Amino acid sequence: MVDRMGREKACLITGTCIEGRPVEILIDETGTIAAIDEKISGSERSNAEVIIDGSGTLAMHTLANTHTHAAMSLLRGYADDMILQDWLGQKIWPLEACLTGEDVYWGTRLACIEMIRSGTTAFNDMYFFMEEAARAVDHAGIKAQLCYGFIDLNDHDKREHEIRATEALVTSIKGMQNPRIKPAVGPHAVYTVSPEGLAWLAAYSASEQIGIHVHLSETEQEVLDAQKNSGKRPPAILDQAGCLTDRTIAAHCCWLDQADCRLLAERGTTVSHNPASNMKLSVNRAMPYPWLVEAGVPVTLGTDGCASNNNLDLFEEMKIAALLQKFAQNNPTCLPAEEALSMATVTGTRALGFGSGLLVVGEPADIMLIDRMVPCNTPLHHQTSNMVYACNGGAVKTVLCNGRVVMQDGVIPGEEEVLNNASRAAADLVRRAADQAE
Amino acid sequence: MVDRMGREKACLITGTCIEGRPVEILIDETGTIAAIDEKISGSERSNAEVIIDGSGTLAMHTLANTHTHAAMSLLRGYADDMILQDWLGQKIWPLEACLTGEDVYWGTRLACIEMIRSGTTAFNDMYFFMEEAARAVDHAGIKAQLCYGFIDLNDHDKREHEIRATEALVTSIKGMQNPRIKPAVGPHAVYTVSPEGLAWLAAYSASEQIGIHVHLSETEQEVLDAQKNSGKRPPAILDQAGCLTDRTIAAHCCWLDQADCRLLAERGTTVSHNPASNMKLSVNRAMPYPWLVEAGVPVTLGTDGCASNNNLDLFEEMKIAALLQKFAQNNPTCLPAEEALSMATVTGTRALGFGSGLLVVGEPADIMLIDRMVPCNTPLHHQTSNMVYACNGGAVKTVLCNGRVVMQDGVIPGEEEVLNNASRAAADLVRRAADQAE
Repeated sequence: MVDRMGREKACLITGTCIEGRPVEILIDETGTIAAIDEKISGSERSNAEVIIDGSGTLAMHTLANTHTHAAMSLLRGYADDMILQDWLGQKIWPLEACLTGEDVYWGTRLACIEMIRSGTTAFNDMYFFMEEAARAVDHAGIKAQLCYGFIDLNDHDKREHEIRATEALVTSIKGMQNPRIKPAVGPHAVYTVSPEGLAWLAAYSASEQIGIHVHLSETEQEVLDAQKNSGKRPPAILDQAGCLTDRTIAAHCCWLDQADCRLLAERGTTVSHNPASNMKLSVNRAMPYPWLVEAGVPVTLGTDGCASNNNLDLFEEMKIAALLQKFAQNNPTCLPAEEALSMATVTGTRALGFGSGLLVVGEPADIMLIDRMVPCNTPLHHQTSNMVYACNGGAVKTVLCNGRVVMQDGVIPGEEEVLNNASRAAADLVRRAADQAE
Repeated sequence: MVDRMGREKACLITGTCIEGRPVEILIDETGTIAAIDEKISGSERSNAEVIIDGSGTLAMHTLANTHTHAAMSLLRGYADDMILQDWLGQKIWPLEACLTGEDVYWGTRLACIEMIRSGTTAFNDMYFFMEEAARAVDHAGIKAQLCYGFIDLNDHDKREHEIRATEALVTSIKGMQNPRIKPAVGPHAVYTVSPEGLAWLAAYSASEQIGIHVHLSETEQEVLDAQKNSGKRPPAILDQAGCLTDRTIAAHCCWLDQADCRLLAERGTTVSHNPASNMKLSVNRAMPYPWLVEAGVPVTLGTDGCASNNNLDLFEEMKIAALLQKFAQNNPTCLPAEEALSMATVTGTRALGFGSGLLVVGEPADIMLIDRMVPCNTPLHHQTSNMVYACNGGAVKTVLCNGRVVMQDGVIPGEEEVLNNASRAAADLVRRAADQAE
């Protein structure tokens, strides 16, 4: 907990419950969970300078969103229900061509508010003007792994530009020395990055010991084109360049075959499942969850950007993931609630390197307090079922990240300013794009 | 608007917007929209005894849920992620066998609160102890068409019992003389009701001029069994008995073929799409939306009961419907946002006979005020897109039904009592079922 003067303070959450057990949670000055007990007493209690009343709440570890483009919140609702190529070519790309760093700052602030409201305190982001995204995450008080979306389209000069942009972002983020913000490299996809580009990104990420964030096998076209152009499937192309590592998060992965799944497992690569985006854009196949589980690939959850979802609520994404897998596999036992929650907590948090994703002593105090007295938690036969199938992010009352309160009883300081600035930035962006089109 | 003494009063909503246009909405003493204008003035304004401040909101017609089993809210999260027959046989039916009228009252009250919170003021319900459900809807202040779930399993004595139960409910609801509550008949499905039962229900509903609410072609097994047992597909069985009418709402309809869709269109029957339930229970086929639209069948939205969804939020259902249809049809232009919203407003409200579903002068004042200053409405490029893809029911601030405020600024009078009683009823129900199983 940080007070108004920026001093770190020990903090005590009272009156809450963990899996039906009434508890108090003590958080030390470093933002680490120091004790969880029915009653914290003695000097531990008296040292806590901040008390958070958790009466009527269920305490859980917060959620991790392993694939998004946060600043695309500015494009929410700008274009929907279109054929992918029209949607990109006529709507999304012309608008993105007019984006400024300030837009990305306010779009990312808006995204952070949306994520905090729905219990997400860590995310994996790929976009442009990422120094501005880093500044936004810093101000929002949550955690992110940020990468610049590297696209060279097999062009040497473009590649040099993208290499410099990648290096600049990594240097900039390392210079912030903020343990909540990590750099990564972001090869956009095998169809937008040359083999040379992929190889450079792999070598650079290895030397810097940072993550790799990539789109993989999202559409059938991507797989067919890769096979036509190189005789290899997309995972093999990434692997040949050294991009499949245990620091890699591959998003979408709808069109993996069983051998692809085994390759990802061997490399220790994590997959980010993005069911809402995949359904909205009609990719025509659900990520093969049973094959990935069988192979031993860690599977996590992402919302994708707001242009193709159109929100960042991981509660909703857990439900859609469970529903889509059951439907696609024709098996109602596929992806049960416990697994959906693990994807969004334990597996996602670990993949981003922000702890174990468990609400236990010694871990970062990334905690959400969920309202117990709401219809979605009435009755409370099975807490995990309610989280996945009944509740949405609106049930989250209070959120802490590294022990710092980022939302208390539904209030996020400065929210109105962010909403106003994001609205203004989005309107200006559309105006600039229209001027440009004339 | 009704004041504390039960007197009807004229009411004025100020400061809101309809589709981007700043308006005031005047509601007369009968709960009808009397005027919508930038500024209501003169005697109309001065006659309004109640003023609702709609600043910072978007006004829309409320939503209609055309298939649910409201009291199953008590079973929320009791059993999930199971094979259908195990789920029913081991979990749902044993619990339902222990249900009491009081349980149904509190379960329906809980469901009404959940629906009000998410902007639904009219629903189509099928369950047991429906006199208690009617009492709950009366107290909640919203609208419903209620039917007793008629199941005779080809047994003469059971049929006589179900006929008496159906007649008793219709007589009881007609006796209430509450224009917000209508009776219907509820043939459960072609595999649970005999041809004689179906024929009686068709004749009775025609003589009483009331609706018919039925499950239809939910699973492939239902279609295969019907063909094996009678040589007919389920819609033809209903039609032969006279159950396909323009007063009929058929839920699910996943396994209709194109000829089935044309038959429904000829009879004027409405379909209720229940995408979340269909996906969760793995029915292995999405309702054929394009065929239904082509044939001219009115398609509406339902949540099904909380045991198979597990909430009653039609905002979520609009999104899941749009996503499922795009995914199942492999076409991102299928079921665009405008159509999803129409299903939940205009088509659903009309199917239940509660007005046009439009927010216009002369119609019942069934109005929701949506919060404008929330992340899901930031930016506001396209209001309908935000409603369908970005927001959930949590964006609803204030709800009126027939001009009466049932939620204001997120507050529903008496909510805590309902949540407590529903929690207690659910826990007692599980205890009774466990005692019985011993």
